[in-house]
Amino acid sequence: MWLMRQAGRYLPEYRRLRERYSLLDLCRQPELAAEVTLQPLRRFPLDAAIIFADILWPLGALGIQVTFASGEGPVIAEPLRTPGQIDRLPAEPDEAAFQVTGEAIRIVRRELPSSVAVIGFAGAPFTLASYLIEGGSSRTYLATKRFLLEHRSAWECLLDRLCDLTVRYLHMQVAAGADAVQLFDSWAGALAPDLYRTAVLPWTRRIVHAVQMLGVPVIVFSTGTAGFLDLVAETGADVIGVDWRIDLDRAWQLIGARAIQGNLDPAWLLAPREELRAAVRRVLERAGGRPGHIFNLGHGVLPETSPDAVATLVAEVQTWSGRRSVA
Amino acid sequence: MWLMRQAGRYLPEYRRLRERYSLLDLCRQPELAAEVTLQPLRRFPLDAAIIFADILWPLGALGIQVTFASGEGPVIAEPLRTPGQIDRLPAEPDEAAFQVTGEAIRIVRRELPSSVAVIGFAGAPFTLASYLIEGGSSRTYLATKRFLLEHRSAWECLLDRLCDLTVRYLHMQVAAGADAVQLFDSWAGALAPDLYRTAVLPWTRRIVHAVQMLGVPVIVFSTGTAGFLDLVAETGADVIGVDWRIDLDRAWQLIGARAIQGNLDPAWLLAPREELRAAVRRVLERAGGRPGHIFNLGHGVLPETSPDAVATLVAEVQTWSGRRSVA
Repeated sequence: MWLMRQAGRYLPEYRRLRERYSLLDLCRQPELAAEVTLQPLRRFPLDAAIIFADILWPLGALGIQVTFASGEGPVIAEPLRTPGQIDRLPAEPDEAAFQVTGEAIRIVRRELPSSVAVIGFAGAPFTLASYLIEGGSSRTYLATKRFLLEHRSAWECLLDRLCDLTVRYLHMQVAAGADAVQLFDSWAGALAPDLYRTAVLPWTRRIVHAVQMLGVPVIVFSTGTAGFLDLVAETGADVIGVDWRIDLDRAWQLIGARAIQGNLDPAWLLAPREELRAAVRRVLERAGGRPGHIFNLGHGVLPETSPDAVATLVAEVQTWSGRRSVA
Repeated sequence: MWLMRQAGRYLPEYRRLRERYSLLDLCRQPELAAEVTLQPLRRFPLDAAIIFADILWPLGALGIQVTFASGEGPVIAEPLRTPGQIDRLPAEPDEAAFQVTGEAIRIVRRELPSSVAVIGFAGAPFTLASYLIEGGSSRTYLATKRFLLEHRSAWECLLDRLCDLTVRYLHMQVAAGADAVQLFDSWAGALAPDLYRTAVLPWTRRIVHAVQMLGVPVIVFSTGTAGFLDLVAETGADVIGVDWRIDLDRAWQLIGARAIQGNLDPAWLLAPREELRAAVRRVLERAGGRPGHIFNLGHGVLPETSPDAVATLVAEVQTWSGRRSVA
């Protein structure tokens, strides 16, 4: 069990740190990134820590400037909207730009007992490309789809570049001590199955294989993909992360014999405690004691969440798992 | 075949009308609503017209003020955030507030040949409630989920009220000449299957049955529900409208022997023409000539769309259907 965005704004100790440091500071200083990564582990008996970094951070290695408007998420000053802009990206990524994440992983790996996994992470190519083209997040991903439909070869060229960048970034994380890696394809659910299959899947698969070559398992997480989880499984990921829009038993029907991570709606953490507990049990019951279930939320912990609610959730998962292994 | 939001901003004749009249004017004056409804029928040989009205328009009958901020969609000045606000809604809706939609339907029914269906419409209870609670549209629907999780009986009370209002609104539309009715549950995909089943489905089903009692078929449309289309089918709707996030053959596996409406991603209308045609054919091939397929987009026509692209799409559907019936 671990929770997406388990390090973040819902924790008072994170907010205290943010009073003194900007998000950019946290990304730039390995000691700070490690500290933020470790904060939830001091509170909750989680099985894994995920390294704290912004999903767009590695794009700096391609000379792309990312800023963080307060409360609006990352913003890219000059969105990529023409094939020419892609041609002008530097031929070689500047790997020095992301060494800080490796250094943070080394600190975290040193601090944690070996029973706790350290998870590295990166954005999957579609999600990275969508930020690059939209200039930020989006409701419709229309600029991204338009680019992909109008300039297919430039799109493929962009995904090649992002793929290359991401493989280097993740290999560096593994070398630094990451025990597993999660690829976030948070916005893949904007696509129809046909487009996902032809314009996204081959590149995500390439990254998955490149990480697995190092003997490290890969989790591919996406949202809104309940209609084509079988295609997500075709990435070859060891674990498929699913959101809450599908029951786990049905998700397993689609992906076959493979581990699943998920899938409680993070909004349940705002519910009365007894109902939160019941919702946790429903997820675990649908997992039906399959060995390949990593309990997680269906997306990140919401900033409005109380740390007490997270404690309730973690305890409930542990109680239930304990009860099962005794039975 | 018809297209969601076939009347709207992508049409120059609509934009010309909007230079002289506000969106509120179009909702308030039946001649204008009818004119907007008829505009796409003058350009394209569609099989149905859907009456032009704002999804939140009927809420005026509960004394709820809706304004339209330019480019931001509808805004509700005083969002419902407490059970007390729901208690204070008027006991009886003021049906006079929505007679204008009936008058518009009468005009449209008179103007169109009987071979063209007139479709009435209303928001489904979850989607209406989400606008009421969020105050507008949302990415996370967090206020709505929080209300529903914290104040379950007030939530049910709100859905009862919206249900009653919507049944009156749709009965009025049927009396005015609507040949079918579409319920838009556009945001139901924010929910997990369990919550949809217990907190939404019973109310949507009640509306579906109330309209079917008048001998009029009902389409229930939602997005992001690929993981639980079988539950959407449990509304009892005659036709299930699906978005593009699932292939139609798989959608049929989930809903069984029932008609489907959909499901081309509206973004395809921005693609080069030959690729648009190929995408249309892929949808029709997946429908596999089943008698119960209404061709439509997976959501509304985007404002960025060229009317020529819509003409291409309509012609392709007609050609392919013609070819099939000859074969």
